[in-house]
Amino acid sequence: MSQRADPVPGEFALIAEIFAPLANADPGSFGLTDDAAIISPRPGRDLVVTADMMVAGVHFFADDAPDKIARKLMRVNLSDLAAKGAAPHGYILTIALPQDVTMSWLRGFAGGLASDQTEFGLNLLGGDTTATQGPLCLSLTAMGWAPQGQMVRRSGAKEGDDIYVTGTIGDAGLGLRVRRDGNIPGLSAEKNAFLLDRYLLPQPRNVLAGTLAGLAHAAIDISDGLAADLGHITDTSGVGAEIQLASIPLSDAARAALEQQAADITALISGGDDYELLLTTAPGNRQAMADLAARTGVAITRIGSITSGNEAVFLDGKNARIDLKRTGYKHF
Amino acid sequence: MSQRADPVPGEFALIAEIFAPLANADPGSFGLTDDAAIISPRPGRDLVVTADMMVAGVHFFADDAPDKIARKLMRVNLSDLAAKGAAPHGYILTIALPQDVTMSWLRGFAGGLASDQTEFGLNLLGGDTTATQGPLCLSLTAMGWAPQGQMVRRSGAKEGDDIYVTGTIGDAGLGLRVRRDGNIPGLSAEKNAFLLDRYLLPQPRNVLAGTLAGLAHAAIDISDGLAADLGHITDTSGVGAEIQLASIPLSDAARAALEQQAADITALISGGDDYELLLTTAPGNRQAMADLAARTGVAITRIGSITSGNEAVFLDGKNARIDLKRTGYKHF
Repeated sequence: MSQRADPVPGEFALIAEIFAPLANADPGSFGLTDDAAIISPRPGRDLVVTADMMVAGVHFFADDAPDKIARKLMRVNLSDLAAKGAAPHGYILTIALPQDVTMSWLRGFAGGLASDQTEFGLNLLGGDTTATQGPLCLSLTAMGWAPQGQMVRRSGAKEGDDIYVTGTIGDAGLGLRVRRDGNIPGLSAEKNAFLLDRYLLPQPRNVLAGTLAGLAHAAIDISDGLAADLGHITDTSGVGAEIQLASIPLSDAARAALEQQAADITALISGGDDYELLLTTAPGNRQAMADLAARTGVAITRIGSITSGNEAVFLDGKNARIDLKRTGYKHF
Repeated sequence: MSQRADPVPGEFALIAEIFAPLANADPGSFGLTDDAAIISPRPGRDLVVTADMMVAGVHFFADDAPDKIARKLMRVNLSDLAAKGAAPHGYILTIALPQDVTMSWLRGFAGGLASDQTEFGLNLLGGDTTATQGPLCLSLTAMGWAPQGQMVRRSGAKEGDDIYVTGTIGDAGLGLRVRRDGNIPGLSAEKNAFLLDRYLLPQPRNVLAGTLAGLAHAAIDISDGLAADLGHITDTSGVGAEIQLASIPLSDAARAALEQQAADITALISGGDDYELLLTTAPGNRQAMADLAARTGVAITRIGSITSGNEAVFLDGKNARIDLKRTGYKHF
């Protein structure tokens, strides 16, 4: 092999050039010059901690743009904080770099992190960088603050609750098909680009988090697909659910895919990577939910209600149950 | 390939059987049934956060015993908490599993974690499990508590400070050679086994942490080798250091390796993976350091002092400087 034009320097130089600028705004990071970071307690707040690992070839394509990989890694974690009603504070990043990673790639990656740090209000606190003979492997631990004892759980859904989702459902699953197989026939270039973007760059709903902590009985972010994640809420809450398929919010692009028979509704509610929020709250909060949507500009749609049953049921226009294997995306 | 006799089940079953038992003792983990864990603030304490990633073929051998891999992952992080004067609280684990991992392997891995949780007093709080086409990739984020504003830094060393190390230096670097190349000729089977164990299973000095926060001016755990990690202290503190080579504590096995000319002192102070503590404190604390060693049973040896210079100097028996490239173990 020829000499690499753009080699990655030693670990300490890499930290100084690439990662320290992401950490300097938080004194608790010590500019990445120490073995650890500190987070000082905030009276009346709990620290909410969540983590996701992403591996090239499993969660993203090795040749995806580095800034998009970085932002997806960040946002899948931010989405968990949003679902828990927590405000972002900081994150720990560990990264195993394949031999062919270049400084140009790392600068793009850091640029994506920097952009999302500004947008969502958090800083890098620490981490670890190493080499690997295998694919790029990324792990991010995100931390945020929720009112003490009020983190929104999966398990708080109550019989009679309304069920809501944010945004639109199923776009990212279709976007994965676009990324993998090329444009979906019969859909415009614009619609294909929209779906692809929905897959590559989740839009976590952190703008809602501050209100959710006092409002939602239960919440989860939709990463495994609407059907599977609703199952997580009903299973942990010991309740059932009834969803009207016709109520599920779909994008124009997803509707076009349905019309072109490029997908059916089952695929849309089973596809992963939506990173929208699924939540339940008392019917008395309908005005509050409408106000929240109006105030934040985030679409929030009521799609059904929590029942006394023990399963999540999806009903078509004739109130007949859809036979739906509640699979969602599984890594095994 | 034949059917695997011991396949890994789906992600949720894996969490329930392997990981949830490691989390159940801390209610903040919600038994791994939610998207996030919580850590409630402790008045007068800072949360200290550190992380390490370990990859098969880089930081350990893929066929090392799974409980040893787990405990090394845990202990390299515990060692950072010890150096910072922090008491362990909990950890987040993310893990990318190659296709050939079995349930038996995972049970061994979890057994190693369970054993160290008991020994060091912390619990699993959350994480993520995924698949990879590449080598096993592990990331652990450890969290602990230090008195507010008193985390021991790398950067606090002062001119005239005594410099101490715990335990013995250089064993793990020799143990890596044993692991890779087989027994070191001229050393007894016992001594080879001792060195190998020092490489495979670090002994982090968390028993000292509670005292260090009020006593040490600066501290670091020795992961890159004594010379390199001393350099991290002198660089960040803006000071120099003089170390008497003859004062550096060596195990009988390391001394035997020196006598057999299987290693020189430079190799011992440059080899990584010691996971002993290196710290500085005022000369007035010599009795306190002796008391600490006596109380905990951990050997603590004074090896030199902090100077007004700007480099770390190692002196032989004739007070001549050793020419030492301050490299330590680098992953790039």
